[in-house]
Amino acid sequence: MRVSLKTVLTLTTLFFISACGADDAADSMWRKLPLNNTVLLTLPHGKVVIELAPQFSPKNTAQFSKLTQQGFYDGTKFYRVIDGFVAQAGPKDGSKKDLSVPILAMEADFKVAKDWAYTPVQQQGLFAQQTGFKDGFAIAYQQGKSPNSGKAWLTHCPGTIAMARNNAADSASSHFYIVIGQAPRYLDRIMTIYGRVVHGMQHVQAIQRTAVIEGEYAVDHRDFTEIVSMQLMSDVAKAEQIHIEVENTESKAFAERLVKRRNRDSAFFYNKPPPVLDVCQIPIRSRIVK
Amino acid sequence: MRVSLKTVLTLTTLFFISACGADDAADSMWRKLPLNNTVLLTLPHGKVVIELAPQFSPKNTAQFSKLTQQGFYDGTKFYRVIDGFVAQAGPKDGSKKDLSVPILAMEADFKVAKDWAYTPVQQQGLFAQQTGFKDGFAIAYQQGKSPNSGKAWLTHCPGTIAMARNNAADSASSHFYIVIGQAPRYLDRIMTIYGRVVHGMQHVQAIQRTAVIEGEYAVDHRDFTEIVSMQLMSDVAKAEQIHIEVENTESKAFAERLVKRRNRDSAFFYNKPPPVLDVCQIPIRSRIVK
Repeated sequence: MRVSLKTVLTLTTLFFISACGADDAADSMWRKLPLNNTVLLTLPHGKVVIELAPQFSPKNTAQFSKLTQQGFYDGTKFYRVIDGFVAQAGPKDGSKKDLSVPILAMEADFKVAKDWAYTPVQQQGLFAQQTGFKDGFAIAYQQGKSPNSGKAWLTHCPGTIAMARNNAADSASSHFYIVIGQAPRYLDRIMTIYGRVVHGMQHVQAIQRTAVIEGEYAVDHRDFTEIVSMQLMSDVAKAEQIHIEVENTESKAFAERLVKRRNRDSAFFYNKPPPVLDVCQIPIRSRIVK
Repeated sequence: MRVSLKTVLTLTTLFFISACGADDAADSMWRKLPLNNTVLLTLPHGKVVIELAPQFSPKNTAQFSKLTQQGFYDGTKFYRVIDGFVAQAGPKDGSKKDLSVPILAMEADFKVAKDWAYTPVQQQGLFAQQTGFKDGFAIAYQQGKSPNSGKAWLTHCPGTIAMARNNAADSASSHFYIVIGQAPRYLDRIMTIYGRVVHGMQHVQAIQRTAVIEGEYAVDHRDFTEIVSMQLMSDVAKAEQIHIEVENTESKAFAERLVKRRNRDSAFFYNKPPPVLDVCQIPIRSRIVK
């Protein structure tokens, strides 16, 4: 299905409305990550930086931050790593350490006010009425029956970090996974996403896979990738801190980039693709500022 | 947008029609890859197996196979590796080796007969009227204006291998890329896909990234990941051959698995996701048989 020109024009207009409707942040192309809202995950083969999302998943973020500050994750392993899907870590299932952590309630989506502002990306996707970005996070939005009953949620894009759980909705505690493959959007709204990788995703991609194909030797648990340490960046020794700025998805510059990305005006596109955007296929830039 | 129950039922029916309409292959859950249609890509850190697609892109596959048999790719490097996007390799641009290879015509899509059979996955996606599988490859299909003028094409899913090119449609020769991130579907129909990784994708994911974020040290070209060797599996010494079977996407078992995957009947799904499937988010199983 090709999206009609009308839809594209509507979206183009929306971008600018959104950009204009945002606050002063719209003037700045970059947004600095607060150190106490940023996590340094040190793997044996590289450093990974994660931005937390307390504004979307306050309770899960708070528990993850607290555990991180206690050194809870240091020495735990990525015990379920499936290529193209997720890398999952946590303490040994059913261990004293595992059972010591309080169970969390699901924070899968949230009600939003009628005037809730975000940067729209795509209408009428298969998984959501609308996708977009808010504070650098890929989101989806669904209008409710009454005019003021919209809901939004963080979507499962590559690099997303979320709480793992058992079958019950409210059964997460400390185990988490990072998406390392094609967005498993079918997990949207039934898992609590609370952050995203903003630096070092290639090191997450290099985590030892634990699920092997039939006919291969099984991976020994001693070869599982270990978390050397997980720290809030604000707790890291100053000389070792990584200061990151990410693209401000509320900025005019970003909205303009989306329009360009949709239109594909480069000569490379000798045949134009459909003017649509997959919210999980839009790289959000980041840079080290120190 | 939720797909209506009617659509789901229609698709469910289609699965079985397709499975029944296929040939004897439908009885077998596994399909053995012919060794002369399979490539062994040896990286410094692991072995990767690629299935070629001569039935879809005969000329590009033939040239790639010929170059492979000549040892053309041995010692070349992955010089453009962007996390979440592609890992691209080939000889030095403009070098004698580079210029020695004939230019290829694009094989981006192909006409199909009215009775062309494939295993349907999803209708009314944003990038195509219909997606599905054919011979293990993710495909998309678009009905033409006249009843017998449908077109199909291979889609850019993770693990896809395609010819790189310059701006002109017919400008590919030997450079290729493997998709390592969220499906860049906007490249569909303007690039020649001619294979897919069926084993060792984690080693492709571990290729040294060459594009770095701002503020990082640039990657020295001496650190680029080298292709130790690229060989047709039929040319590999017998003891070193890897025999692979892949899931037969024309089988009844596969069609049933698609239905289950769409329905998400497990207790884990305490809230059911929309009954839709992303053709690039369906792992096609493979196994080593020797």
